[in-house]
Amino acid sequence: MKKSIIFFSILFCLNGFGQTKAKNIHIEPINFSKVKITDSFWQPRLKNHAASTLNTCIAQIESNTGRLTNFVNAGKRSGKHSGIFYDDSDVYKALEGISYTLINNPDPKLEQTADDWINKIASAQLSDGYINTYYTLTGLDKRWTNMDKHEMYCAGHLIEAGVAYYQATGKRKLLDVGEKMVKHMMSIFGEGKRHWVPGHEEIELALVKLYSVTKNKKYLDFANWLLEERGHGYGTTGGNGEWDVKYYQDEKPVADLTDVSGHSVRCMYLFSGMTDVEKLEGNSKYTKALNSVWDDVVLRNMYITGGIGSSKQNEGFTEDYDLPNLDAYSETCASVGMVYWNSRMNQSTGDSKYVDVLERSMYNAVLAGVSISGDKFFYVNPLASKGDHNRKAWYGTACCPSQISRFIPSIGNYIYGTSDNALWVNLYIGSSADIAIGNKKMVLNQETNYPWNGDVKLTVQSLSAPLKKEIRLRIPAWCKKYSIALNGKTVTNLVLEKGYAVLEKEWKSGDQITLSMDMPVEIEKADDRVKEDLGKRAIQRGPIVYCLEEEDNKANFGFENLTKDTKFETFYNPDLLGGIMQIKTDASPKDVLNFIPYYSWDNRADSKMKVWIDYKDK
Amino acid sequence: MKKSIIFFSILFCLNGFGQTKAKNIHIEPINFSKVKITDSFWQPRLKNHAASTLNTCIAQIESNTGRLTNFVNAGKRSGKHSGIFYDDSDVYKALEGISYTLINNPDPKLEQTADDWINKIASAQLSDGYINTYYTLTGLDKRWTNMDKHEMYCAGHLIEAGVAYYQATGKRKLLDVGEKMVKHMMSIFGEGKRHWVPGHEEIELALVKLYSVTKNKKYLDFANWLLEERGHGYGTTGGNGEWDVKYYQDEKPVADLTDVSGHSVRCMYLFSGMTDVEKLEGNSKYTKALNSVWDDVVLRNMYITGGIGSSKQNEGFTEDYDLPNLDAYSETCASVGMVYWNSRMNQSTGDSKYVDVLERSMYNAVLAGVSISGDKFFYVNPLASKGDHNRKAWYGTACCPSQISRFIPSIGNYIYGTSDNALWVNLYIGSSADIAIGNKKMVLNQETNYPWNGDVKLTVQSLSAPLKKEIRLRIPAWCKKYSIALNGKTVTNLVLEKGYAVLEKEWKSGDQITLSMDMPVEIEKADDRVKEDLGKRAIQRGPIVYCLEEEDNKANFGFENLTKDTKFETFYNPDLLGGIMQIKTDASPKDVLNFIPYYSWDNRADSKMKVWIDYKDK
Repeated sequence: MKKSIIFFSILFCLNGFGQTKAKNIHIEPINFSKVKITDSFWQPRLKNHAASTLNTCIAQIESNTGRLTNFVNAGKRSGKHSGIFYDDSDVYKALEGISYTLINNPDPKLEQTADDWINKIASAQLSDGYINTYYTLTGLDKRWTNMDKHEMYCAGHLIEAGVAYYQATGKRKLLDVGEKMVKHMMSIFGEGKRHWVPGHEEIELALVKLYSVTKNKKYLDFANWLLEERGHGYGTTGGNGEWDVKYYQDEKPVADLTDVSGHSVRCMYLFSGMTDVEKLEGNSKYTKALNSVWDDVVLRNMYITGGIGSSKQNEGFTEDYDLPNLDAYSETCASVGMVYWNSRMNQSTGDSKYVDVLERSMYNAVLAGVSISGDKFFYVNPLASKGDHNRKAWYGTACCPSQISRFIPSIGNYIYGTSDNALWVNLYIGSSADIAIGNKKMVLNQETNYPWNGDVKLTVQSLSAPLKKEIRLRIPAWCKKYSIALNGKTVTNLVLEKGYAVLEKEWKSGDQITLSMDMPVEIEKADDRVKEDLGKRAIQRGPIVYCLEEEDNKANFGFENLTKDTKFETFYNPDLLGGIMQIKTDASPKDVLNFIPYYSWDNRADSKMKVWIDYKDK
Repeated sequence: MKKSIIFFSILFCLNGFGQTKAKNIHIEPINFSKVKITDSFWQPRLKNHAASTLNTCIAQIESNTGRLTNFVNAGKRSGKHSGIFYDDSDVYKALEGISYTLINNPDPKLEQTADDWINKIASAQLSDGYINTYYTLTGLDKRWTNMDKHEMYCAGHLIEAGVAYYQATGKRKLLDVGEKMVKHMMSIFGEGKRHWVPGHEEIELALVKLYSVTKNKKYLDFANWLLEERGHGYGTTGGNGEWDVKYYQDEKPVADLTDVSGHSVRCMYLFSGMTDVEKLEGNSKYTKALNSVWDDVVLRNMYITGGIGSSKQNEGFTEDYDLPNLDAYSETCASVGMVYWNSRMNQSTGDSKYVDVLERSMYNAVLAGVSISGDKFFYVNPLASKGDHNRKAWYGTACCPSQISRFIPSIGNYIYGTSDNALWVNLYIGSSADIAIGNKKMVLNQETNYPWNGDVKLTVQSLSAPLKKEIRLRIPAWCKKYSIALNGKTVTNLVLEKGYAVLEKEWKSGDQITLSMDMPVEIEKADDRVKEDLGKRAIQRGPIVYCLEEEDNKANFGFENLTKDTKFETFYNPDLLGGIMQIKTDASPKDVLNFIPYYSWDNRADSKMKVWIDYKDK
């Protein structure tokens, strides 16, 4: 097995790092509703999501907690509010997950559940459009007095759910509730009205979604107004009555941001909203800021797993290179936020470096957030464990389970995109996609055993008419050696642009592209400024970061040495942890180290775990 | 608890490093027969040694193996030789241990056992003086043909046993056997006779002992001749017919040695013999060589435990700074050899740096060689273990158990010494000593809880007449802060010479010296060239090196981080491991690390262990 050492600065390779965004690129994602995932890695996860994750969330929302009852009570304007002031958002996020699931897996019973919830939600909306069960049940006199009480955050998730359910079923009821809430907010806040800095961003990107569906530009403008509210001293009362401008990203106008600070999920949602607004307004007013904070996140504040926000203290960022392993926070929601933001950055630049980060987060930090069984969740994703950190069925603050519930069924969104000139292939996931490009219709099949294997076969199964466009294949940053063949003939003189191999011809039905990527085990090094990882290395193969669990390393745990001479063997084990490529070191039996994918840890008995391992340069 | 970081180069502090030996110092040790150990650390070990260790060795030699039967068979000149060609030495070393035990604990039954053995040994001596059961029983035609077959090594241990038993009982029989064997050797080897380079040194220092008892200068001359045989190409057939000059310290004349090489026990015995011969000849012909190899051993090739010889391959030295932990060899015999050699170096220089090393080896690498129960032994002393390295009751090559059997009862040798001008106090061990100095007789009492506490009280209990001499108290290299009081008055303007505090007055009966040494927990760093310990630290308190066993650190093993802010708590636990000072880190309960003395590891269930621990400078 080939093995190489790559010195990387958290993210080990950055295509085009330092470039400014190319403004004339505008990639539209192929919505997951058009992509049928058929592979053996994600497809079982999607099935499990419908069968297990969603049901877990539904049971928690309907029965085990008072989340749905809060809406019923609010509808009756009586009874107590239970839980925390932002709990409404979990119901909305689960509804978003249900919507996505219904798109690819119609299920009348599930739709009935959603309709029932939506009725209860709608009943909780006041006549002025306001909807928030916490204030309705604890005192409406206090609404819109504390910027950190998540009223706009919950509204944002309401909107995202409304849009998703409308797209899944054509039913507008929830969307209307959301739109009515937006109108309520716009009646109070905006140019010449009250100032407001949402303590937890989310509303901005949701308003952009609402704009995309309704084409009502006022919503985009309101999103823009909310972004521009920041950094002018308008932020006032936050949690506990205090307002920490760093924690809330309210230190300076967002266009002037250079560094990340504060709560990591809020950052991701803010940056997503900024990327959205700039793109739809067709300007580049946030480009410099976005490039700068992206560097700050990815080069100085990201774990090898693609997780971010190292501190439990603020659920967010601390000093550069402060990336503890045992005490890593790396909230699941923030990693999903990394996918959201990086996808948007890619769509407005055509640079694959954003998909490299997206992929790193998705296959590692995000996927670790849910158990193989689909019914247990991590809120916090450390890179080392003493065996006392375990997934739970639910959390008091349940943002992460509900985040997983809406993210997993949407992963089809991130595979393909189209722009004026090109079809973009970003992720390698076995699937069949109905793609509208130019005025042509293409069915594109992708066959691959990714992430376990780097061979990919793309077949233009049907095409309504010959198509003269580029097909751009992302060459992942982890990939050091690859070849591409077109209808069986190796392509020489390949053009590589911002990490994409550019293939240009008049495409016809039956055309076949094969991409063969070497996928050796790599020994990764963190930036020397990450003190926690000094003298240590991590193992990665393809996009998958590996770890050691004591379970598989009873004799050697605590003595896990790698050297530059360490050789690795890989073998697919279909019976372990849902089917994984295992890696073991090629040592004498008593010294073998057995690695499993990081995402698959803590799925057996409680076990110690570590990603970064002692390394000796001898 | 005060805590400091000391950067040390294996040995963390070297008093007078680089000095040449002062030739006019000649310290005579106070023999252990004059020192009654009364403390709570060593006294139980001496009792246990008599009750357990010796009986284990006796049972192995008499019954479980053929070691004693070899002598019986050799006496009959018939029967087979069992075991290995050097097994006679184990019988001699056990006899030496029995002799030392009889001195302080007369035991007619034990003496009867020794007499019985000695009769069997004597019966095995040929009429020409040759004694070696291996050749007698496998073919005398081959004797003196292979320099690595340990004939002189066994003869050396015979002499040491003979001297010891003579001193213990006044019985000369075994001494005579040894002397006769020496005469046999001197009839074959020497100036104008055959050349011979003993493959395993030992005979040289034994001949010096024989000279000291018999005053026959021929034995000293023969020792000198044997030392001078080396490095001239006389070494020929060794083990497997080959002769590796590095392995056998035969690369150059011993006076020209600059670096250590080869088998570590052989080195220690060679250097001990060189130090002895030079001292008794009253010259300094080996001084430069001894200083140079001492630096090489201590500064570049010694573990923090005082163990040496890192490689299993040659049971010896490899490259400088090659000090693996898990795979450390660090043979028990070699650590005892460090005590032997460093004691001699101290006696001819009056430099305490040698006692610092002696003490380090004695309390750590040597003491780990025997179980708390006294009946199990380590041959190999790693500084880390996966739990699969355990003491055994005996070994095929049993040099280490028999080495322990003779070393432990002799530790009283290393506490005091006298020279023309001074009484030297080297080790702090509660005891009562009958000291002859000048023409006076002194009874000196030492009270201390060393090594757990740095307070020492020395009382001149009786003195035949007032005595005008220096009393020199060793200030250990580990000690950074101390004070001395004389009859209750703190001594100011202390003179410190080569690591000794020099007290001068006319001593009288009843005089009392108190030495108070601060004994904080220290975080020790290895030389940066020791790759194995990069980014790691070890814990030491006083002379005791500590380790972590998984047994006491179930939750945290594998995640043992120290930082410069780590605080320590110490507490004496009389019920654990024979009574030890435990050290724990002052962290939240789930992060506490529990340290035990290195010497006490592997005395409970099989457990992983490590001395060097990850350290973060934050």
